[in-house]
Amino acid sequence: MAYSGGSIRLQDLLFEPKDNLIDQSMSSRSAETPTNGDGFGVGWYGKWERPGLFHSIRPAWNDSNLRDLAANIESPLFMAHVRATSLSTVQETNCHPFRYNHWLFVHNGEIFEIEKFRRNLLMAVDPKYFENILGSTDSELMFHLALSFGLEQNPIEGMARMVGFVESTGKKHGVPESMWMTVGLSDGKTLWAFRYASDGNAPTLFHSREVSELIGINPAIQDRLSANTRVVVSEPIGKFRDMWAEVPQGSSITIKDGSIEHHSFQAMTIQSV
Amino acid sequence: MAYSGGSIRLQDLLFEPKDNLIDQSMSSRSAETPTNGDGFGVGWYGKWERPGLFHSIRPAWNDSNLRDLAANIESPLFMAHVRATSLSTVQETNCHPFRYNHWLFVHNGEIFEIEKFRRNLLMAVDPKYFENILGSTDSELMFHLALSFGLEQNPIEGMARMVGFVESTGKKHGVPESMWMTVGLSDGKTLWAFRYASDGNAPTLFHSREVSELIGINPAIQDRLSANTRVVVSEPIGKFRDMWAEVPQGSSITIKDGSIEHHSFQAMTIQSV
Amino acid sequence: MAYSGGSIRLQDLLFEPKDNLIDQSMSSRSAETPTNGDGFGVGWYGKWERPGLFHSIRPAWNDSNLRDLAANIESPLFMAHVRATSLSTVQETNCHPFRYNHWLFVHNGEIFEIEKFRRNLLMAVDPKYFENILGSTDSELMFHLALSFGLEQNPIEGMARMVGFVESTGKKHGVPESMWMTVGLSDGKTLWAFRYASDGNAPTLFHSREVSELIGINPAIQDRLSANTRVVVSEPIGKFRDMWAEVPQGSSITIKDGSIEHHSFQAMTIQSV
Amino acid sequence: MAYSGGSIRLQDLLFEPKDNLIDQSMSSRSAETPTNGDGFGVGWYGKWERPGLFHSIRPAWNDSNLRDLAANIESPLFMAHVRATSLSTVQETNCHPFRYNHWLFVHNGEIFEIEKFRRNLLMAVDPKYFENILGSTDSELMFHLALSFGLEQNPIEGMARMVGFVESTGKKHGVPESMWMTVGLSDGKTLWAFRYASDGNAPTLFHSREVSELIGINPAIQDRLSANTRVVVSEPIGKFRDMWAEVPQGSSITIKDGSIEHHSFQAMTIQSV
Repeated sequence: MAYSGGSIRLQDLLFEPKDNLIDQSMSSRSAETPTNGDGFGVGWYGKWERPGLFHSIRPAWNDSNLRDLAANIESPLFMAHVRATSLSTVQETNCHPFRYNHWLFVHNGEIFEIEKFRRNLLMAVDPKYFENILGSTDSELMFHLALSFGLEQNPIEGMARMVGFVESTGKKHGVPESMWMTVGLSDGKTLWAFRYASDGNAPTLFHSREVSELIGINPAIQDRLSANTRVVVSEPIGKFRDMWAEVPQGSSITIKDGSIEHHSFQAMTIQSV
Repeated sequence: MAYSGGSIRLQDLLFEPKDNLIDQSMSSRSAETPTNGDGFGVGWYGKWERPGLFHSIRPAWNDSNLRDLAANIESPLFMAHVRATSLSTVQETNCHPFRYNHWLFVHNGEIFEIEKFRRNLLMAVDPKYFENILGSTDSELMFHLALSFGLEQNPIEGMARMVGFVESTGKKHGVPESMWMTVGLSDGKTLWAFRYASDGNAPTLFHSREVSELIGINPAIQDRLSANTRVVVSEPIGKFRDMWAEVPQGSSITIKDGSIEHHSFQAMTIQSV
Repeated sequence: MAYSGGSIRLQDLLFEPKDNLIDQSMSSRSAETPTNGDGFGVGWYGKWERPGLFHSIRPAWNDSNLRDLAANIESPLFMAHVRATSLSTVQETNCHPFRYNHWLFVHNGEIFEIEKFRRNLLMAVDPKYFENILGSTDSELMFHLALSFGLEQNPIEGMARMVGFVESTGKKHGVPESMWMTVGLSDGKTLWAFRYASDGNAPTLFHSREVSELIGINPAIQDRLSANTRVVVSEPIGKFRDMWAEVPQGSSITIKDGSIEHHSFQAMTIQSV
Repeated sequence: MAYSGGSIRLQDLLFEPKDNLIDQSMSSRSAETPTNGDGFGVGWYGKWERPGLFHSIRPAWNDSNLRDLAANIESPLFMAHVRATSLSTVQETNCHPFRYNHWLFVHNGEIFEIEKFRRNLLMAVDPKYFENILGSTDSELMFHLALSFGLEQNPIEGMARMVGFVESTGKKHGVPESMWMTVGLSDGKTLWAFRYASDGNAPTLFHSREVSELIGINPAIQDRLSANTRVVVSEPIGKFRDMWAEVPQGSSITIKDGSIEHHSFQAMTIQSV
């Protein structure tokens, strides 16, 4: 989940979304949202140079540090992430978001059979970024490959090159369709989201419609959201499904000041190593 | 889950139950057994004075300490427990089993609205046992009340008095039907299990049938289980449901050397404080 | 450590105190300040109703959640605490500060041989405050006894009654001199600190002098601290020992808007139970 | 610390060493052994295929899982390790011992300025061993480099090649003297220990003398240790310093069935990458 809009307390979206845009928290223990014990994280932009990070390997609903932080932090742009079925160790350094300077990155999905070529991917990370890798997930590695392929200069192209490189390296090691992802990315001003899979069947991704439309659907949110609010989620949550628009397979969106641009997103061919 | 029988490695029941008595681990991530991030614990009897305990607030399937312990510990009598929906803090001192000397205790269920009379229950714990309370769960408090009411001398009567006391104290504070429980209890030789609720609607409880019967149902388990093996579980797990017999509401079972005795179980009236 | 003054980022005092008022962090790994693995906590007042809390059982110097929180939280009044030799379990619910509504409480020291009369102390906690006890420390119990004895109406008298009650209960159980403490307490506006021991030999306690005096001692701090800044610490830290004034045995101080009042502090006799 | 001898409960050496060979536990909170919150680990050989591991980021003296495990595990060969000042993240995957199949590895010391050439070292790890790297320490990387250089076939030569490779890679990146280590290594039958530093000034390392000699020094240990017992430690602990013999700089020892062989240990030149 990623939020961009007027400055709000994190808890307004994470813990108190009743009758709000999201009326059922991603971190709640509802029957519909199966609980998840593999790690939680939130990254937020404040008034200082670097975004803040909070990572936890405890259930989000029962982490009192998280609750107090969410009650005391306001931010106009933040991302939260719940880790699902993953083979990597459950430890804080494996929790999303990952950070490099003012960049934040979250990922759902996986690189299939990465154990066959993780070392090759790691060797392609630019030495400049290498020491910023703290954990052992495929997600963090994807981020640092994208950085190595120019994400800071051109986020969408950096991501496209990363995907192309992972796919070609995977093929070389006998994995024909290795990439399966939705990704959230931000530099603190713009929010990008990507939906892509090698086999065309990526996890779902949704963005909220314009606030003026949302109020028509659910008048209760009036006065709660600034006009430029946009939220990106993995699944349409809450009882007002019409609030959400699906991001198509093989595409990316760029959110800034409430406006959304859509782009087709494809892998760029990169020679594997 | 509680095991009594020939000495086996814990992992044989916790992590490798394929085509075995239990062919689907309580700790597995199956769709049928919703995962649980609120704490895991195992207690086992070995060759020394006190049973061993391992408590973890991480998902059991991803705790490498637990996996190594389960691979290296053999025991003829052990209990494992996964905490579900509970309001108490997620911390190791709130994980089951609870221990007093050579006694182990696990509980599913809850004392309804205990926040209205927890203090009264706590004040009824005998000073002799008071300092053995390490956490803040209703379960641990139930155990220490039962100890205070004579569990060490007569386990079933101690439990019955505890239930009676909780119910009468609850009533006094406006909670007409406060007890909802299944409980496993052992002194290292005998295994007791209890199923009781004030409203007659306790959580489910099952015990495995005689090993000779089990082999008729699932020949694959031959040579894997000693003749005196008995397993107690909250739900009939695995594909061979006939292996399991339900423990009736308002009853207890006493397992020793593979034999099972059934008793009716009722609250004994105790004056509340 | 407790800070009262102009709003500053927590890290300015916790992690970056070079050439500052405190030029050696309590959380640093210096040889003089032996490291401590028994738990860390910080509580801060922000712009919302309740103070925030962060508790950790990891070393403060290596907790990345803490570092990010300290970089992103500003506060005009906060307390930090490092747990030292204690017999209680190392868990977050045992970390200071303890909180009740808008009150925060930290404690150094211990109640001697409390295991002989903890139950008696616990029974004296008013039911109104009882469910706010989350952990198992003597410190948290002291706070809730003081609340039960009127701390919210009169902080110093509530503390004095609490001390008297602990001492008389201790004596009844064969502990002639049971109390050993320094305590920090706040309601978000005023900061109180107490130094007291039954045997007259409490842990040390210091407060910083007036900022105008501090600048004379260490000109480097000019422009870094607001005129009404006061810091309370257990030990005079940093190279400028003259910056600190010792709080005498058997006394308390009351800090508000930079001014300090001194009071004698004595136990008030309360009948034990 | 590493133990080789008759099968003993881990706690006999870790928690109850009074008047024993080691009368002051490495995990104790004594003034002489500064406490350490950066991680604890123990690895032991039992009767099964793989050694067991227990890793903890909590203080050893306050980890109840460790105490119960140590009370219930017997082993004729085990290693325990306390992490000291290290820059790597405090997480369980960074705790020693590290394991590959039946091999265990512990390390004190560090590779100086490894951040300048970590990536180059990592690229030299054989793909066969690469996926066994779970954490981010220099120690684990040293182990996997030694494996890549033939440790399984010839432990001492594998270690010597690893050291040579690290030193030559370090030099290439401007670090003239990069290696500083004592290492413990075992395959479950033999115990090796190494003391080496590029500048000839490695951390200290000691081994216990023959049990017959030990009894002369401290008669209290008679009947407690089998005749073939040998213990290796970083510092001579306990009041009987004569029990310990120092391992010289630039040497290794090989312990099997109570006998000790001494070897000179030098780096073997390997081309850096």
